[in-house]
Amino acid sequence: MANKDWKTFMIPYEQAVEELKVKLRAIRTEYRRKNDYSPIEFITGRVKEISSMLEKANKFEIPHDRLAMELEDIAGIRIMCQFVDDIETVVNILRSRQDMKILYEKDYITNVKPSGYRSYHMIIQYPVNMASGVVNIIAEIQIRTLAMNFWAVTEHSLNYKYKQSIPENIKSKLKEAAESAYQLDQTMLDIKDEIKDAQKLFEVKSAI
Amino acid sequence: MANKDWKTFMIPYEQAVEELKVKLRAIRTEYRRKNDYSPIEFITGRVKEISSMLEKANKFEIPHDRLAMELEDIAGIRIMCQFVDDIETVVNILRSRQDMKILYEKDYITNVKPSGYRSYHMIIQYPVNMASGVVNIIAEIQIRTLAMNFWAVTEHSLNYKYKQSIPENIKSKLKEAAESAYQLDQTMLDIKDEIKDAQKLFEVKSAI
Amino acid sequence: MANKDWKTFMIPYEQAVEELKVKLRAIRTEYRRKNDYSPIEFITGRVKEISSMLEKANKFEIPHDRLAMELEDIAGIRIMCQFVDDIETVVNILRSRQDMKILYEKDYITNVKPSGYRSYHMIIQYPVNMASGVVNIIAEIQIRTLAMNFWAVTEHSLNYKYKQSIPENIKSKLKEAAESAYQLDQTMLDIKDEIKDAQKLFEVKSAI
Amino acid sequence: MANKDWKTFMIPYEQAVEELKVKLRAIRTEYRRKNDYSPIEFITGRVKEISSMLEKANKFEIPHDRLAMELEDIAGIRIMCQFVDDIETVVNILRSRQDMKILYEKDYITNVKPSGYRSYHMIIQYPVNMASGVVNIIAEIQIRTLAMNFWAVTEHSLNYKYKQSIPENIKSKLKEAAESAYQLDQTMLDIKDEIKDAQKLFEVKSAI
Repeated sequence: MANKDWKTFMIPYEQAVEELKVKLRAIRTEYRRKNDYSPIEFITGRVKEISSMLEKANKFEIPHDRLAMELEDIAGIRIMCQFVDDIETVVNILRSRQDMKILYEKDYITNVKPSGYRSYHMIIQYPVNMASGVVNIIAEIQIRTLAMNFWAVTEHSLNYKYKQSIPENIKSKLKEAAESAYQLDQTMLDIKDEIKDAQKLFEVKSAI
Repeated sequence: MANKDWKTFMIPYEQAVEELKVKLRAIRTEYRRKNDYSPIEFITGRVKEISSMLEKANKFEIPHDRLAMELEDIAGIRIMCQFVDDIETVVNILRSRQDMKILYEKDYITNVKPSGYRSYHMIIQYPVNMASGVVNIIAEIQIRTLAMNFWAVTEHSLNYKYKQSIPENIKSKLKEAAESAYQLDQTMLDIKDEIKDAQKLFEVKSAI
Repeated sequence: MANKDWKTFMIPYEQAVEELKVKLRAIRTEYRRKNDYSPIEFITGRVKEISSMLEKANKFEIPHDRLAMELEDIAGIRIMCQFVDDIETVVNILRSRQDMKILYEKDYITNVKPSGYRSYHMIIQYPVNMASGVVNIIAEIQIRTLAMNFWAVTEHSLNYKYKQSIPENIKSKLKEAAESAYQLDQTMLDIKDEIKDAQKLFEVKSAI
Repeated sequence: MANKDWKTFMIPYEQAVEELKVKLRAIRTEYRRKNDYSPIEFITGRVKEISSMLEKANKFEIPHDRLAMELEDIAGIRIMCQFVDDIETVVNILRSRQDMKILYEKDYITNVKPSGYRSYHMIIQYPVNMASGVVNIIAEIQIRTLAMNFWAVTEHSLNYKYKQSIPENIKSKLKEAAESAYQLDQTMLDIKDEIKDAQKLFEVKSAI
């Protein structure tokens, strides 16, 4: 397939990313407009570079006509939360939406990857209305705390630099950093619980 | 209803406008990416100001709890085309979409308004996925040429200034302008046909 | 120069277009926020495609190291006005800005091109702050009414189709269309004057 | 001053935030386009809510006509970096820009606040070109790592909930979290140095 055709191939994926960013950012707007705490802090999205898509296809020997089925992260959305337990809230909101179909979920928070990677992944099917009709594409939504994201962004750039073979000494430093990030999330979660307790106390007092 | 509640009332309408702008602009991107002529030149969108919504409700004696059913232009999208016959193409694209339901259509191009107003209106039902569930809202899509839009924008600002009672002498000037705009569209349409003829000739030649 | 280098060459031009769009759109926001009539209806901007820039360089035999000085429309901004006399207001606003330097102006409204093209052009020098220091780039600002723009967009796409050699019969149709566009602008201008008169009458009455 | 006048007062601040976001995001684009590591991860901006501006004015007894001079954070920009030592790079880039004037700097990274707050602040004067002339406004740029930001966002929302009087037990939890965030930044910085060493080794080898 020529470069021009790959650009055409990408159109519905780019469109899906644009639509999903607008739709999911609206969740945050909705909470904030109602003066409620938003479980979503911010959202980013991107489509895979054509070159790195073809590289991955090559590495895993995926025929080009099966890319749309086999590669689940051509369209990718990332949702950042402030606290670990916001992730579950976001997952439940996404599960209840009627404009996407969840194919399956991967819980790397309960089952942390050996590298230290933590995140919640949802693989969805999303219908894109094109001039020529509806195209159902597959997209990946990653949900994580700011600390998980901080760590993952760094690991990603190191993997990129070292072509997936990070030297052992840096790998162990990364695990140490993952531990700090985890501690940070836990401490924050403790505070969140205390906030809730404090608020409950306040409401009990008010009710008397 | 307090101002705060009206702001909450507007959330799904604002969301619909944002989503529809992103979705319909993608049609233009799709054509252009494929090096095809796009029937859409540009798209704008807006929600009605709360104050002018309440004014309209007052004028037509619409109870506040019936606004969402009675006012069809709380969410408004405007699609501008280069040539008159692009409008039909756009209408057919919208009719075939599966993410909106067309309630009815108003053809002010065949049936020009006495004021000189020309445009094609589609009243649609559009589902907005909120954190709390799906809300079906009503929206108006106006499809017009650049010349129709030019005229309509001016008439709108005059109506605003004169509170719907434009003086007769200005009214007749406006009708004159509507005539010029119509002539402009017709001349352009002539050229478009000639372009098509020229291209057909070219293709016949190439086929020999 | 490799494609990669041309992409680097374009960075300050892309940046200038982004900055100028944000800055000039703010003029409209400022007028509207103060409930005043805005002389600006809308603004678009674009950088020239690398391929069509190199084509133009080739056609006019411009050495590549002189492109930044010789091509004035690598960065292009277009300001659309509702009425012809808004153009002068916009020109004066731009002349008084301290963040750009006007190199020269081309008045194709007084001096209509033989093709029928009407627009006001300002060639400016604009400083872009890059990570590596300030780069002064040249940009072109086109100011026109909606009707002028409508005509110019069509002529541009015909020139593109016919590679600058539009057939005579279409050329004469285009001139006819330019005449309709001009009539439209004139009729609108008449109304604008009447609006002003009507407002003056109103103010005299109020003063008694 | 009426609400309408405060909205007018805010115009140049909103404009400054829009311009600065576009300008500073371009730094990241410039690095990435050249395939270089960008010291900027992402940028956010906001203007202060009118209500919280007036509250602050009231609390510190600032006369309304001195707000523009006394309140330095009416326009606020936040630059997030991946590594602690990226902050210095960003500070130097900002110091060398010719489109803003740095009034003074506050280094809360060397001099951590008792609460645990770490960030680098630059108070700048920035000229906004309005339709009516140039207005010099004061804005605050905060530069921090993702971990510093994570902590600061949480502290801010707690301060908001507890109206600046966070209970002691939560305060000590927050300091614990600040310590985790600091550890995270330090571990990351260690890795960054190792990356640099690894790259230097690589270059030496290549040179042989």
